[in-house]
Amino acid sequence: MSGSILGNNIKISTWGESHGAALGVVIDGFPAGMELCEEDVQKLLDRRKPGTSAATTSRKEDDKVRILSGIFEGKTTGTPISMLVENTSQRSGDYSEIASYYRPGHADYPFDMKYGFRDYRGGGRSSGRETIGRVAAGALCKKLLSQMGIDVCAYTRSIGDVEIDDSKFDKDAICSTPTSMPDRDADIKAMELIAAKRAECDSIGGVIECKITGVPAGIGEPVFDKLDALLSRAVMSVGAVKAIEIGDGTKVSKYTGSENNDEFIMEEGSVAKATNHSGGILGGMSDGSSIMLRAHVKPTPSIAASQNTVNKNGENIEINIKGRHDPVVVPRAVVVVESMCAITLLDLMISNMYAKAENVINFYKK
Amino acid sequence: MSGSILGNNIKISTWGESHGAALGVVIDGFPAGMELCEEDVQKLLDRRKPGTSAATTSRKEDDKVRILSGIFEGKTTGTPISMLVENTSQRSGDYSEIASYYRPGHADYPFDMKYGFRDYRGGGRSSGRETIGRVAAGALCKKLLSQMGIDVCAYTRSIGDVEIDDSKFDKDAICSTPTSMPDRDADIKAMELIAAKRAECDSIGGVIECKITGVPAGIGEPVFDKLDALLSRAVMSVGAVKAIEIGDGTKVSKYTGSENNDEFIMEEGSVAKATNHSGGILGGMSDGSSIMLRAHVKPTPSIAASQNTVNKNGENIEINIKGRHDPVVVPRAVVVVESMCAITLLDLMISNMYAKAENVINFYKK
Amino acid sequence: MSGSILGNNIKISTWGESHGAALGVVIDGFPAGMELCEEDVQKLLDRRKPGTSAATTSRKEDDKVRILSGIFEGKTTGTPISMLVENTSQRSGDYSEIASYYRPGHADYPFDMKYGFRDYRGGGRSSGRETIGRVAAGALCKKLLSQMGIDVCAYTRSIGDVEIDDSKFDKDAICSTPTSMPDRDADIKAMELIAAKRAECDSIGGVIECKITGVPAGIGEPVFDKLDALLSRAVMSVGAVKAIEIGDGTKVSKYTGSENNDEFIMEEGSVAKATNHSGGILGGMSDGSSIMLRAHVKPTPSIAASQNTVNKNGENIEINIKGRHDPVVVPRAVVVVESMCAITLLDLMISNMYAKAENVINFYKK
Amino acid sequence: MSGSILGNNIKISTWGESHGAALGVVIDGFPAGMELCEEDVQKLLDRRKPGTSAATTSRKEDDKVRILSGIFEGKTTGTPISMLVENTSQRSGDYSEIASYYRPGHADYPFDMKYGFRDYRGGGRSSGRETIGRVAAGALCKKLLSQMGIDVCAYTRSIGDVEIDDSKFDKDAICSTPTSMPDRDADIKAMELIAAKRAECDSIGGVIECKITGVPAGIGEPVFDKLDALLSRAVMSVGAVKAIEIGDGTKVSKYTGSENNDEFIMEEGSVAKATNHSGGILGGMSDGSSIMLRAHVKPTPSIAASQNTVNKNGENIEINIKGRHDPVVVPRAVVVVESMCAITLLDLMISNMYAKAENVINFYKK
Repeated sequence: MSGSILGNNIKISTWGESHGAALGVVIDGFPAGMELCEEDVQKLLDRRKPGTSAATTSRKEDDKVRILSGIFEGKTTGTPISMLVENTSQRSGDYSEIASYYRPGHADYPFDMKYGFRDYRGGGRSSGRETIGRVAAGALCKKLLSQMGIDVCAYTRSIGDVEIDDSKFDKDAICSTPTSMPDRDADIKAMELIAAKRAECDSIGGVIECKITGVPAGIGEPVFDKLDALLSRAVMSVGAVKAIEIGDGTKVSKYTGSENNDEFIMEEGSVAKATNHSGGILGGMSDGSSIMLRAHVKPTPSIAASQNTVNKNGENIEINIKGRHDPVVVPRAVVVVESMCAITLLDLMISNMYAKAENVINFYKK
Repeated sequence: MSGSILGNNIKISTWGESHGAALGVVIDGFPAGMELCEEDVQKLLDRRKPGTSAATTSRKEDDKVRILSGIFEGKTTGTPISMLVENTSQRSGDYSEIASYYRPGHADYPFDMKYGFRDYRGGGRSSGRETIGRVAAGALCKKLLSQMGIDVCAYTRSIGDVEIDDSKFDKDAICSTPTSMPDRDADIKAMELIAAKRAECDSIGGVIECKITGVPAGIGEPVFDKLDALLSRAVMSVGAVKAIEIGDGTKVSKYTGSENNDEFIMEEGSVAKATNHSGGILGGMSDGSSIMLRAHVKPTPSIAASQNTVNKNGENIEINIKGRHDPVVVPRAVVVVESMCAITLLDLMISNMYAKAENVINFYKK
Repeated sequence: MSGSILGNNIKISTWGESHGAALGVVIDGFPAGMELCEEDVQKLLDRRKPGTSAATTSRKEDDKVRILSGIFEGKTTGTPISMLVENTSQRSGDYSEIASYYRPGHADYPFDMKYGFRDYRGGGRSSGRETIGRVAAGALCKKLLSQMGIDVCAYTRSIGDVEIDDSKFDKDAICSTPTSMPDRDADIKAMELIAAKRAECDSIGGVIECKITGVPAGIGEPVFDKLDALLSRAVMSVGAVKAIEIGDGTKVSKYTGSENNDEFIMEEGSVAKATNHSGGILGGMSDGSSIMLRAHVKPTPSIAASQNTVNKNGENIEINIKGRHDPVVVPRAVVVVESMCAITLLDLMISNMYAKAENVINFYKK
Repeated sequence: MSGSILGNNIKISTWGESHGAALGVVIDGFPAGMELCEEDVQKLLDRRKPGTSAATTSRKEDDKVRILSGIFEGKTTGTPISMLVENTSQRSGDYSEIASYYRPGHADYPFDMKYGFRDYRGGGRSSGRETIGRVAAGALCKKLLSQMGIDVCAYTRSIGDVEIDDSKFDKDAICSTPTSMPDRDADIKAMELIAAKRAECDSIGGVIECKITGVPAGIGEPVFDKLDALLSRAVMSVGAVKAIEIGDGTKVSKYTGSENNDEFIMEEGSVAKATNHSGGILGGMSDGSSIMLRAHVKPTPSIAASQNTVNKNGENIEINIKGRHDPVVVPRAVVVVESMCAITLLDLMISNMYAKAENVINFYKK
């Protein structure tokens, strides 16, 4: 199956390997007339760029985006938007050894079983660089959503056991701290933890949270295309994510109904909710409250410590993975989660435009 | 958007409301030549039938399935299989009052915002009865998977704070205990908890776990159609599910890489893994180990206790929901989760058949 | 592949065999709030009913439709609409012999090659009765289109060499003549031709034309989802159709550019065209003129005359097909072509609602 | 709607405008392990290159393809294959005038109505250059099909009233005559016709035929995804095509059943057909005979002769289109039709791999 295309109305088709000539994305079905320049996209791409702090790999990746189609006179034309980032600083020499064995925690073994061989350089298609296309697409979706008053904001909730304190929430810190934490104190503690893990030739996991505000009620489609179902699919498709929670998430399994139900109340003439255990989603549709989602991210599988594994000849071996790897995936994955949420939400908002027959009729009366 | 169709190769199209004439499913693309009778489907449907114990509503739902197409001389023909269950015991009178207000924890409010009105009888399309079509489709997929040596087995892991003890795992208990727990001691404790919550006019949540064995490595498609991504979407699309975990799930965010990585080892001449933190999925593809997934299910939102909410006139009101409701959703949802996993897995196994060009060429050489 | 589902926004999933228990359709994604009763659907279904004249088979098919879901208080709810027609008058005895051989002009042989066996009763899934689901879906789409001032009108253009005279066009005749011709003189001549062919134990082909008026310019999506491309697929998918023409169709291959180009002119302050060789479609999008499409329909393959063929044992045999068959497919297929055009057009009109970013933004500003 | 993506198993996503930075395609889901180099693609692209004869425009388009992803060690990897052609010789200055008016026979007017504006340079997205991505994708599909003994061969059947003589069919002539005609005498006459039309500042239409041999019976899916339906959609989506015929096509409307039915006969122990009126397709599935399809192509709408039209201010004007235009579209479109047929056929052959349950079971037994 074609596995690199996502969406129903707006379709995102990503391509590219870590050490190929380039990586990119084609966005088909994006509405016409939105102003767009490369800088709009570059800003988001820069948020996933490594080499900016001790929380990331020391590899330099320049990652300059070029828009090749779908823009005319500074605006989207309604036709496919092709964007590309050239791979300029990849050193294939670093990776030759791993061709022969299966790294623990990596996709090497399933890849070989599925396709018979793999592009082993830097993880090939399963490299984190694969997310460049997602973020480029996310930049467009976020921009259109923002013009409807919708804000999609992801950040690091925790790294290892260092968690942010919601009372210290500082949105500006997300893009200025090395951990993408919106709490500068937690950021400092997390950086200490990361440094310790790096010193131990090890890595660490964490949690990314995404909050979406300004979404009207009714977005999402009953049954299989529920908002929470499609958000889960989109975010779980990001490498290293192993669990997804909506609203109170795993806690609900211990709740009683009276604890978990959010009561509706009238607030300034509008329907609102007294609490938000549901994370802004009821019956798979937005309920008008903030949408809250959490993604649990595993520690980087590439660690410098010795590990046992097997090679392609079926022999048990011991390996030491070399190269420059992030000691924690979380900070760079924040913008990826944000992008996936934006892409999914915008697609469902478009679907919702024809939920009522009168909307279709009125559109064509104009 | 069309939100009631799922799948790429085998497409499942479900339909029906709680109190309409009938509910059903059309399965398009199911391979020809598999033996199938109504009893094959009925057995799974009976596992979601209520009224069989104190853990479920006292409503009786007969839920006899009829297969209307796609079967000839006892075998699937390759053409769409239409299956239907008539609604026979629904009492519309019970539900007239709820038309006027929005029940906390239910989809009433988003439904009205989206479509302008709703079939309020018994939850309409967002009733648990919607899952009849899913289970009927799941029965077929499970049967074909079993012929390939694949077992998809879901069960109740916990209800409230009562959790099964893995050392007491008894597979036979899943279908014979009222809680669908594979641990008879935990079942007794959970039934006491349920009775207590019912007495308090309240309800309780729980966790469903699904274990899939016998899956070869390489199933799932890199990037957006990862096995874990599509399983998450499928299971999160079941009403009341609020979190999904693959393998060690939420725990990985506190793990180090050396704790989380599963080492590969040779076992009887085959590649195996020393541990299974990954839950049988690496890089979005099966890795040959058992696939492990957990769904966290919220407590039944329909509770007899008084609740505050708003009505369609925008007034704050207090309500008492009458009717016969499950005090816990989990036991009846077990077979639904099992079905969703089977449908998703089979679909991806079919996609995998052409991963290699030589497979396509060899198929047509025959 | 799932081959019985059509559409992007509104998805039509048809099912059923000629001699199974029933045939039907599930329509997923139809907008909410349109008034609909069974009579709306029955009226169109009655147009494809046989037994009403010498132009059709003498078989009686009652074909009463039941709507099982998706309607509440007389209006569509936005959830899947399931419709069903029970097979009541099928006599399986008539068809037992054809199980053993491959009828010329029929799908018997490819069906066996693909699936290994087939439901041979009355053609099974490849029977003309398969179109019941299409027409039921078409009824809904036509109704919504009519509320936007769009008329989809198909009729018989010719049977054999008897063609209508456009100067005698009488729309009322379409539903009142046995041939579905909008020219009562041509109808009489065509009926004579049909009677002659029937007497010769033979059958005859013909042409169905469809004219769609009231469509605004810009419907259809550049490149693969062009309006003419999707209309062609939809109409060619009707059994017995062997050619499709848009506008002047096959004639354009002999035209010069100056003959074929339609000049634009201002007409009452609006852009119009001096001619309509294009059939209302330019660059795959509607151009504001009437959309004109022609489907060329082959003669009924089931003829009473002797024919040579082979049987399943690989022997050359001579056969005489018994049973009651239409001497011409065209009159009953008119409403099927009309339905397929309506389904396709409505789906693309919905897609067009978000062609401009400002339309999306304005929708959510409301 | 996303309109630039085609296919179910193998998905083709094309992008690019005539005068943008580049044009290209992403192919997602192509099987792994097929040898592929840029030259394989370039050979097909060169067949659509202009400037090679008096039958085409004198514009030079170099059209060198680069493969950016999805290939490793000379073989497809199973991940998306991104291919790109830079636009090097486009002169935007030529096109500035046409921004203000709507050219007859072109998509200018519908484009503006749909999106509010358009990239008017060289036709933008509706330029013939859009087909570069189609042909690049077609090259891969043709290569894999050829490894299964399947030949997809399109050629010019006629230009204006000059038609090939089947008794002079010379396959080698297709790629060596300027008209892509497989009859060298007809080619000479057609070139004279083209020269005459060019001298008259006019253009001419023609017919492309495609013959596919070696396809086993049973390819195509009953009902909406019939082989002929999807071929029609794919070929009709090529700009300038206005009619599609399968087998005897439009002639069948005048045939009787006894004339049109192809009798089955045993030939060297295999089922064959005495004639091939059906064009190799019965009931939407291949019947084992050669597949025959014809596309009727309109004359180039850009002609040097004076034409009346309207401008964006709603004024009637007279225009003379300048620039270098093909006097006939047909010769360069031959390889595009061939590509669309190859893409469609391969996709359906993959779908057919799981038509039987035993095929799925046997695949995983290996």
